[in-house]
Amino acid sequence: MTEEIPAKDRVAIIGIGQTKFGEQWDRSIRRITLTAATACIADAGVSGDDIDGLYVSNTSTSSFIKQEHQAAMAADSGGLLPIASTEVEAACASGGVAVRHAYMAVKSKEHKMVMAVGCEKMSDISEPAIADTLMGAADREWEGQIGATFPALFALLARRHMHRYGTTVEQLAYPSVKAHANAVDNPYAQFRFKVSIEQVLQSAMVADPLRMLNCAPISDGAAALLLCRGDLVDQFEGDPIWIDASTQASDTLALHDRPHITQFRAVTSAAKQAFNKLKMKPAEVDIAEIHDSFSISEIISVEDLGFVEKGKGGPTLVDGYFDKKGTIPVNASGGLKAKGHPVGATGIAQVAEIAEQLRGRAGKRQVKGVKRGLTLNLGGTGSTAVVHILNRE
Amino acid sequence: MTEEIPAKDRVAIIGIGQTKFGEQWDRSIRRITLTAATACIADAGVSGDDIDGLYVSNTSTSSFIKQEHQAAMAADSGGLLPIASTEVEAACASGGVAVRHAYMAVKSKEHKMVMAVGCEKMSDISEPAIADTLMGAADREWEGQIGATFPALFALLARRHMHRYGTTVEQLAYPSVKAHANAVDNPYAQFRFKVSIEQVLQSAMVADPLRMLNCAPISDGAAALLLCRGDLVDQFEGDPIWIDASTQASDTLALHDRPHITQFRAVTSAAKQAFNKLKMKPAEVDIAEIHDSFSISEIISVEDLGFVEKGKGGPTLVDGYFDKKGTIPVNASGGLKAKGHPVGATGIAQVAEIAEQLRGRAGKRQVKGVKRGLTLNLGGTGSTAVVHILNRE
Repeated sequence: MTEEIPAKDRVAIIGIGQTKFGEQWDRSIRRITLTAATACIADAGVSGDDIDGLYVSNTSTSSFIKQEHQAAMAADSGGLLPIASTEVEAACASGGVAVRHAYMAVKSKEHKMVMAVGCEKMSDISEPAIADTLMGAADREWEGQIGATFPALFALLARRHMHRYGTTVEQLAYPSVKAHANAVDNPYAQFRFKVSIEQVLQSAMVADPLRMLNCAPISDGAAALLLCRGDLVDQFEGDPIWIDASTQASDTLALHDRPHITQFRAVTSAAKQAFNKLKMKPAEVDIAEIHDSFSISEIISVEDLGFVEKGKGGPTLVDGYFDKKGTIPVNASGGLKAKGHPVGATGIAQVAEIAEQLRGRAGKRQVKGVKRGLTLNLGGTGSTAVVHILNRE
Repeated sequence: MTEEIPAKDRVAIIGIGQTKFGEQWDRSIRRITLTAATACIADAGVSGDDIDGLYVSNTSTSSFIKQEHQAAMAADSGGLLPIASTEVEAACASGGVAVRHAYMAVKSKEHKMVMAVGCEKMSDISEPAIADTLMGAADREWEGQIGATFPALFALLARRHMHRYGTTVEQLAYPSVKAHANAVDNPYAQFRFKVSIEQVLQSAMVADPLRMLNCAPISDGAAALLLCRGDLVDQFEGDPIWIDASTQASDTLALHDRPHITQFRAVTSAAKQAFNKLKMKPAEVDIAEIHDSFSISEIISVEDLGFVEKGKGGPTLVDGYFDKKGTIPVNASGGLKAKGHPVGATGIAQVAEIAEQLRGRAGKRQVKGVKRGLTLNLGGTGSTAVVHILNRE
């Protein structure tokens, strides 16, 4: 199908920039954002003057340091004035939403070249404040008020998945083991060391059955992408990577309103829209980055994306199907678990990773022969899902 | 120019919904949002199933009641799942940004019919908390830390405008007098009573030279618009109003980084983009809604939009040029000052007002014979500006 679409109606990624994820005590959020943005511009070989739109994804800076209006702040500190600059927020899916809006801004012909940059600085915020703020991604009024924390909600999903499909704590440990093994080769990753199933099962309990090593960490970091109208890519150096589908869907904010809490309906919807648009099957995806904020998220997501039958996520993961050398490598970057999860940056970093892999520039973590990749970014307990499908050609 | 664009590449407003602005102690933010959204759907004569995209503009709910992820919340409580739903934030310009993104979503052909809904609930938040949160729209680190409040920053603009251009406190009072006079006829307005120049000048001092009646109030309320691809409008009842230009620009976050604080460069840039696109002059605008969060904002804005020569905003206003019976009626709705300013709703309500005026359905506040209208929505101290130009044909 993609052959039929004229280049002017396609959208290409022509620049990628990232900071290392982890603790960045010595840098402000302005500086972290700027570091990723300037790396992205340098990667594309363009100048700031070429860029006519900016999207900023950030989740909690308004709560953490009471700074709203970060779109203007990023445009300002990046020296990009008077650029049109917009902040989007969809909890942990903010980054994916920013990429999608950069994509639509180009596709609408209102813009020619648009940057999406996502950032979060969390290390210097107290853990209770972070826990409280993250709960704002779920339903504060109906879930937060009864004392639920964000990990507690995902623990409910995990417990129910175990009950319904026989998923075991060992299977629940596996996404983390895989993520850490992959992160060893990623210079941008927060945790570049392996963990074993035993280590996961012996780590501190957070919300039964989720232990510390089942949960993505608190991170600082930023990631940026530069998107460009397809007919203009020849003006710039480097290999463009094409965004062939960008889809988004929603589910209830609170878990208790869903018929089955073991299904992410927003994922099913966004994935179906994307696969239908491209007339492709899930199995035709060569590589994916999937939102593993908690290891149960990855298990449910590989099912709802259609990669495996419902309920089979756990055993299929343990079988190595999603390993770096498996059938569909998932989270070759280390994922949110081991690469890190600076919330606003995550969805952009996922697309950045797939684009680097498709360009064949992922260094030691390169997966060979990949042509088509998918990203899934989740917000809240799956209340927002954003899917991107990228193509090398 | 607009005649040349095929209908499928144009975007129309086919539905408008608003709540009354003011104090709504007995309604949650979900309910307020839903009230405007359902009124909008009813106005368009469509069903929720026809809508395939949602934009939510809100500024401070994440700070006020620690609820993030309001795009999913609105999709959920509106019964619109699994719709793609996105929250945008650009301080007081959030509503304008939401309209612009609904417009681009349709124009990109990724969506056919998109709602933009904006809301804010402020009455039940303590005034110090509101003052503190609003300061997050400016530069928290460089302006907030030295004790500036949001009115104090606008007072600096006003004082400098008085010094540089001879603007008087009587001229500064006039936008409020005009706004209150117009609001008398608006059933959606928070303050439906007149004030005199003397009353403005005798009201309590907030930040010299700005007095209470120079400042927009704290409000609860919501506004919604339904946008549709141009070639589909014939399927629905009612008069479509066309969005011919939707532009956005940024300026520095902090005032001290600007060469002249009496100019809103983002306004100049967004207005120039819009007028150039339509090959029209500012004087060809029949009616406008202009962001008057403080009366100095309206004075500077009518200058930077090109309606009057720089520095002449004050005297031109007092001359009645922008009165309801003047050359270009500005804020026939009552503006932010008297209609009210529920922050996230404001930019959408401005476009709603112009659309109602162009449809000839503005009731007692109707301005006769208007064909082309403009809205200007500002964020922060002019760090974001969004301009829309609407056309009856």
